[in-house]
Amino acid sequence: MNFAVVGWVLAWVLKIIGFLMLVPCLISCIYMEREGIIYLILVVIAITVGGILSWRKPKNMAIYQREGYVSVGLAWLLISAYGAIPFVLTGEIPSYIDAIFETASGFTTTGSSILSDVEALCHTSLFWRSFTHWVGGMGVLVFILMMIPSRGGSHMNLMKAESPGYEVSKFVPLVKNNARMLYRIYLVMTLATIAALLISGMPWFDSFCIAFGAAGTGGFSVLNSGCASYTSVQQWIITIAMIAFGVNFSFYYLCLIHRGKDALRMSEVRAYFLIILASTALISVDIAVQEPGAFASVWDLIRAAFFQVGTIITTTGFSTVDFDTWPSFSKFILFLLMICGACAGSTGGGIKVSRLLIAMKSLKQELYTLIHPRAVRKVRIDGHALSDRTLRSVYIFLMAYSLIFGTSILIISLQGLDFETNVSAVAATLNNIGPGFSIVGPTCNFGIYSWWAKVVLIFDMLAGRLELLPILILFFPRTWSANG
Amino acid sequence: MNFAVVGWVLAWVLKIIGFLMLVPCLISCIYMEREGIIYLILVVIAITVGGILSWRKPKNMAIYQREGYVSVGLAWLLISAYGAIPFVLTGEIPSYIDAIFETASGFTTTGSSILSDVEALCHTSLFWRSFTHWVGGMGVLVFILMMIPSRGGSHMNLMKAESPGYEVSKFVPLVKNNARMLYRIYLVMTLATIAALLISGMPWFDSFCIAFGAAGTGGFSVLNSGCASYTSVQQWIITIAMIAFGVNFSFYYLCLIHRGKDALRMSEVRAYFLIILASTALISVDIAVQEPGAFASVWDLIRAAFFQVGTIITTTGFSTVDFDTWPSFSKFILFLLMICGACAGSTGGGIKVSRLLIAMKSLKQELYTLIHPRAVRKVRIDGHALSDRTLRSVYIFLMAYSLIFGTSILIISLQGLDFETNVSAVAATLNNIGPGFSIVGPTCNFGIYSWWAKVVLIFDMLAGRLELLPILILFFPRTWSANG
Repeated sequence: MNFAVVGWVLAWVLKIIGFLMLVPCLISCIYMEREGIIYLILVVIAITVGGILSWRKPKNMAIYQREGYVSVGLAWLLISAYGAIPFVLTGEIPSYIDAIFETASGFTTTGSSILSDVEALCHTSLFWRSFTHWVGGMGVLVFILMMIPSRGGSHMNLMKAESPGYEVSKFVPLVKNNARMLYRIYLVMTLATIAALLISGMPWFDSFCIAFGAAGTGGFSVLNSGCASYTSVQQWIITIAMIAFGVNFSFYYLCLIHRGKDALRMSEVRAYFLIILASTALISVDIAVQEPGAFASVWDLIRAAFFQVGTIITTTGFSTVDFDTWPSFSKFILFLLMICGACAGSTGGGIKVSRLLIAMKSLKQELYTLIHPRAVRKVRIDGHALSDRTLRSVYIFLMAYSLIFGTSILIISLQGLDFETNVSAVAATLNNIGPGFSIVGPTCNFGIYSWWAKVVLIFDMLAGRLELLPILILFFPRTWSANG
Repeated sequence: MNFAVVGWVLAWVLKIIGFLMLVPCLISCIYMEREGIIYLILVVIAITVGGILSWRKPKNMAIYQREGYVSVGLAWLLISAYGAIPFVLTGEIPSYIDAIFETASGFTTTGSSILSDVEALCHTSLFWRSFTHWVGGMGVLVFILMMIPSRGGSHMNLMKAESPGYEVSKFVPLVKNNARMLYRIYLVMTLATIAALLISGMPWFDSFCIAFGAAGTGGFSVLNSGCASYTSVQQWIITIAMIAFGVNFSFYYLCLIHRGKDALRMSEVRAYFLIILASTALISVDIAVQEPGAFASVWDLIRAAFFQVGTIITTTGFSTVDFDTWPSFSKFILFLLMICGACAGSTGGGIKVSRLLIAMKSLKQELYTLIHPRAVRKVRIDGHALSDRTLRSVYIFLMAYSLIFGTSILIISLQGLDFETNVSAVAATLNNIGPGFSIVGPTCNFGIYSWWAKVVLIFDMLAGRLELLPILILFFPRTWSANG
């Protein structure tokens, strides 16, 4: 293990957090809030300490896979821990574990909150909270890579460790230029969302924060009512924005380079939209049949169903209604969407549509092999045969996912809360959704969990955001051996 | 598809069910119950029809993998459907779907019941119900293979399709002689259990039925109180019997051929006992801390914990206490044990300890590969490197398992029952356990589900017993093409 280079990357990360915290400082100036001073002090400390520690490049700059994964895992722990400090110092979230929970929930674009009254926060902290979604959406390390001196191989290993989701169709090679391209798409789409919300008459503060949440597929809102009190037009805008950010960014990239036909042929994107439409239809019918009087009109029902399906499959976690009161069937569809998640190469979490596609195709091929034992047939996505290595990594991911899922529920169930709460709390954090069901439903919060259960859920949020391995590797003793 | 040979195998299956039904006829003579006549008529029909249809061997006797799987899938549907008829004709279970549920639950060694009052059944039906566990425990087709004229290759493909669990250590090649050997072990162990129960003072009827349940890891009891009213000595005997039948039978085989050292080195068996001890300890401590007054003494507590752990991990499904009222942590341990299941090559269900071992080792190896990308290291069990083919089949199994799990819950949740009930109902049937939690807990039954939900649960029981593929293949259109 090359400890020097890992330390150097972490110093860079600290420096960047400093710069990022300048944004809430700016907001505090607008609202003349004193809390800005705390943020400013933290900016100075981060930039100074980070600057000093990253001053000297280590002699051996080799970042192999191991260093890449460890750097990414530790970097996310660092930003969660440092980004949580202002909440404690302002007194808004007195417990440090709670503050880390909230910040990790922000950066990992989860959106689970321990706050029962978000409106009590000052504008500065509220903005910082939503801003972490936006930063977390596209990855903190990618951000840094655009700034630190380039070294092809090293960057690859860092980006590979942090990239959100296994890319089935590698149209966008992971090199610096294309990271810029992706950032530009991300920025333009965010600005478009902000503009649309402003035009619809939403206050500018809400527009920015909600757009950050939608872009990063986070889910922190700025009102205690979530998104329920926004107009129906605003709710439609948010729905469309969330779903757009859950699409594989390769889709937009292909459109930009005039390969729209290839974009439309991406089976993952097709499956994604198909799942959204089917789920919305099923939920609408289920509610219409089971609870006929629940909504004033059919359009209200469809809007609510569409919003909730969009918010869950993209793992955003906004809500306009209390879906915990929905009938069992609709609720279980939402539960499956939580696990499914958005497209690979998007800002969304979950298992990802592409992995599920691969799993389904593998199963189909296995049945085919049973019938024709001598036939050789490869699993294909978009016409490309997948390598055994790729398939294996998908299978291993699914097993690691199940393992973390089960173990997390087991530990937090020590607190004695009910089955549905525990299962959905882990589903909501591991898939970076936000709200779960029952006691952690959309009208409730995660404050009821004790500190050690919160630690488990923080772990789940980070593991989910980083696609499991960079976090799991931190617990593997061999990782920390100096040699090899 | 060679339809002729599949039909011929099914005719044999029908004939065998006829002979099996002679056993309840015998019981009806002892108890002078009129219901015996119904069983006798069904015996005559089955043997006559099955005999006529299986009279002529098809010209083409080739049983390839496809024919093997399809025969097994259909054979289990047939025995469930035919074995259910007496319950309907005696009027004890008026609905045919309910009767199929009960019979499939018997043959698949699940033990989930739709009866609220089992004591209302006549002895004949009660015995038949428990006898199906014993028959189902070692597989119906294996039974038949010992009788029909041998053809090496064909037998292999039938047994491969029905064998309970992927055998990591193939000490017992799947040929006729060794099937006999396994049957002998099974028979001797069953007789030993019956003898122990008789000596402990249990009535002979109960001793037989409970021993059948323990041997097949079924779980139908003959009293409404389950196993709660048996003495503590009897409960210990049942516990030990259940756990013994959950051990990989290769273990006993190795002991018999004087290779006890190799037997003790089997990592699956070690893991199995480790899980049992750890779970019992954790549950005992949890209950002692959370509900100090729940049991009269520490020994009562440990006995209850041990019994319940044994009954769930072996997927038997007896119960001595209402574990649905246990604290969340203990309940979730039981839930994980449901999914874990017993050893491969035993009569138990679930994912199987060996598959979980392989999954864990694969994950560990993946992390190792991340750290040492160029190292070549194989996943090993008991010193044997596993082939890629074997690993793949384990991964695919786990994915198919998750898929069936999720889909089943989705469908049955249409009925509107709560999350915990639905999840545990599917867990209890797919893993061939018996009781679940909440409304389908140990003091309740599956009668509340509507007929279509029961069809889904019957599917789950069969899929679980046959290790998924033989049932899934029936739904794959290509299976039914005449050529290829």
